[in-house]
Amino acid sequence: MTISQRRDRLRHHLADAELDAMLVTDLTNVRYLSGFTGSNAALLVKADGATAVLATDGRYRTQAARQAPDVELVIERACGPHLAGRAAADGIRRLGFESHVVTVDAHTALQQAAEGVELVRAPRIVERLREVKDAGEIAILRLACEAADAALTDLVAGGGLRPGRTEKQVRRDLESLMLDHGADGPSFETIVAAGANSAIPHHRPTDAELKAGDFVKIDFGALVAGYHSDMTRTFVLGPAAQWQHELYELVATAQRAGTEALRAGAPLREVDAAARQVIADAGYADNFGHGLGHGVGLHIHEAPGINAAAVGTLLAGSVVTVEPGVYLPDRGGVRIEDTLVVGETTPDLLTRFPKDLAVLD
Amino acid sequence: MTISQRRDRLRHHLADAELDAMLVTDLTNVRYLSGFTGSNAALLVKADGATAVLATDGRYRTQAARQAPDVELVIERACGPHLAGRAAADGIRRLGFESHVVTVDAHTALQQAAEGVELVRAPRIVERLREVKDAGEIAILRLACEAADAALTDLVAGGGLRPGRTEKQVRRDLESLMLDHGADGPSFETIVAAGANSAIPHHRPTDAELKAGDFVKIDFGALVAGYHSDMTRTFVLGPAAQWQHELYELVATAQRAGTEALRAGAPLREVDAAARQVIADAGYADNFGHGLGHGVGLHIHEAPGINAAAVGTLLAGSVVTVEPGVYLPDRGGVRIEDTLVVGETTPDLLTRFPKDLAVLD
Repeated sequence: MTISQRRDRLRHHLADAELDAMLVTDLTNVRYLSGFTGSNAALLVKADGATAVLATDGRYRTQAARQAPDVELVIERACGPHLAGRAAADGIRRLGFESHVVTVDAHTALQQAAEGVELVRAPRIVERLREVKDAGEIAILRLACEAADAALTDLVAGGGLRPGRTEKQVRRDLESLMLDHGADGPSFETIVAAGANSAIPHHRPTDAELKAGDFVKIDFGALVAGYHSDMTRTFVLGPAAQWQHELYELVATAQRAGTEALRAGAPLREVDAAARQVIADAGYADNFGHGLGHGVGLHIHEAPGINAAAVGTLLAGSVVTVEPGVYLPDRGGVRIEDTLVVGETTPDLLTRFPKDLAVLD
Repeated sequence: MTISQRRDRLRHHLADAELDAMLVTDLTNVRYLSGFTGSNAALLVKADGATAVLATDGRYRTQAARQAPDVELVIERACGPHLAGRAAADGIRRLGFESHVVTVDAHTALQQAAEGVELVRAPRIVERLREVKDAGEIAILRLACEAADAALTDLVAGGGLRPGRTEKQVRRDLESLMLDHGADGPSFETIVAAGANSAIPHHRPTDAELKAGDFVKIDFGALVAGYHSDMTRTFVLGPAAQWQHELYELVATAQRAGTEALRAGAPLREVDAAARQVIADAGYADNFGHGLGHGVGLHIHEAPGINAAAVGTLLAGSVVTVEPGVYLPDRGGVRIEDTLVVGETTPDLLTRFPKDLAVLD
């Protein structure tokens, strides 16, 4: 799908909502709909198919012209108010705005700039479009997941996970290896959690040393061309104790159950329940305190959320994580997470690093 | 200053604005006023001196209790609305909220939760408090600047800047060296710009190789305990041409002029003008297209902005950058930037890497 086709999809929604135009001010949404990646921008998309108008400031004149060649470009520092005024001048009557992003003060500025225009709340319209990835987006996400896979493979092969190394050292090596494999950077703060720290779902790496017998939980991803990968693997250093084998197998079973439930049309909360039930049946319901997964794309967390409170169903072409975990305070925890493309039947697995319990001697 | 004293400072402002309480929802401001660094939080500070109330969700129960021991802690996912309801229950009549941060939709949720309470716009109150750093903050900023200084020193000493290396390689080495010197990470996307790329003020590193005769402009910083350093140095690879010497000397002169103008009470735009005039007098006014500087602290860009449009004066204890630049399209550019603490007289220089033109053979 071309970027101009994305704007066409938006226009269908505008017609449905009886909006004459949409003022897009969320920068990720501006990027999605125009290709422009600068830090100050807004985009005006009219329902009638007129050329979209991109506003940015003088720093970005050249970049905007290169990245977004098929829109009208205006150079103006106060991007949102300027385009609201432009909408008024162009006779727009009902103008949608991103009420989940626009602040109270910014809304006042839009009202002042767009006298006579009705500003209509239109939250998360573009986010819903972004939920279904097109082929180009999936290709980039695949590259991001491959970079993460390759980095973790190199880390393990190079002996990067062994007693005496610190969580921070492992993080650093892994992030460096992702750069070697083409990433622009990590897609979020890498989690390396050893021993009892692995029981903390979102532990930040410390100077704690990895020790024989530890679980080592690594949750990380690669950023490639603006898209985020997300994967968690849990290892054991040295011979695994019986409880570690059992805990790992439990989470792996839950992860398979969640993955098997992952298909277009499945209610989000049923996908969550498929994995959660496995863990609850084993008596660990209280030790899995987060949702099963989330969409990934231009943000590391985006629609859909896959959790017990989620409303709605999975869409074909969305890219999501499946990441159950069981955390035993002061002992250790296991999380196993993949990124997958939702399809009509079996999902397409993007994170391909093996998931059997790796015991590193 | 203790964190509790920061809240006392806020209370003075609430009294001035005739607010009974302030609902703080900006996460950086919550951190500043409570010490808590989680990703979901809000803080209610009453003017009467009652214990502040911190809301966060269950993931952060332990962390919040540890980081913010002297506030009342409530566990609740919808932090802002919950505290708005709490304000209503406690008889608050006028409740300030951060109208520059709260979205239109979030504002509606606050209104619904705080029936009978008047929600009063109170933008940037905490940001103004944050502008003046206390001794503990300055100590951390000094560490951050020292980490950056040491990393750049090591980079140069180790031959990291030489023909044949790429901008991306230099970025990576520098970021790695900052970690060696105690940084938690880079404080923003490191800029390494060689040759003609140095004429692009905010160039992203590419695979372009450094070449003999190039300017190499490096703008980077270290993140330490949440605080950001910021420094730019420009080098020449090999013998410098006459125009390079002249351009460098011009920018260095402007940088000194800006630094000499930096003192408590100085109008912000006059500080900008002091440096800008030097560049304009040399005929390069159009080649210096950005402001002279900005505050640094918990954000890489914060109050005060030092530019031609700025209103207000410098405050003693604020920490700011002074960073004039002259950019000659397709040839090259020079920027020299320090981070300094504003005082009553001479500012305290935090970024101490030498500023004479370093010609690297």
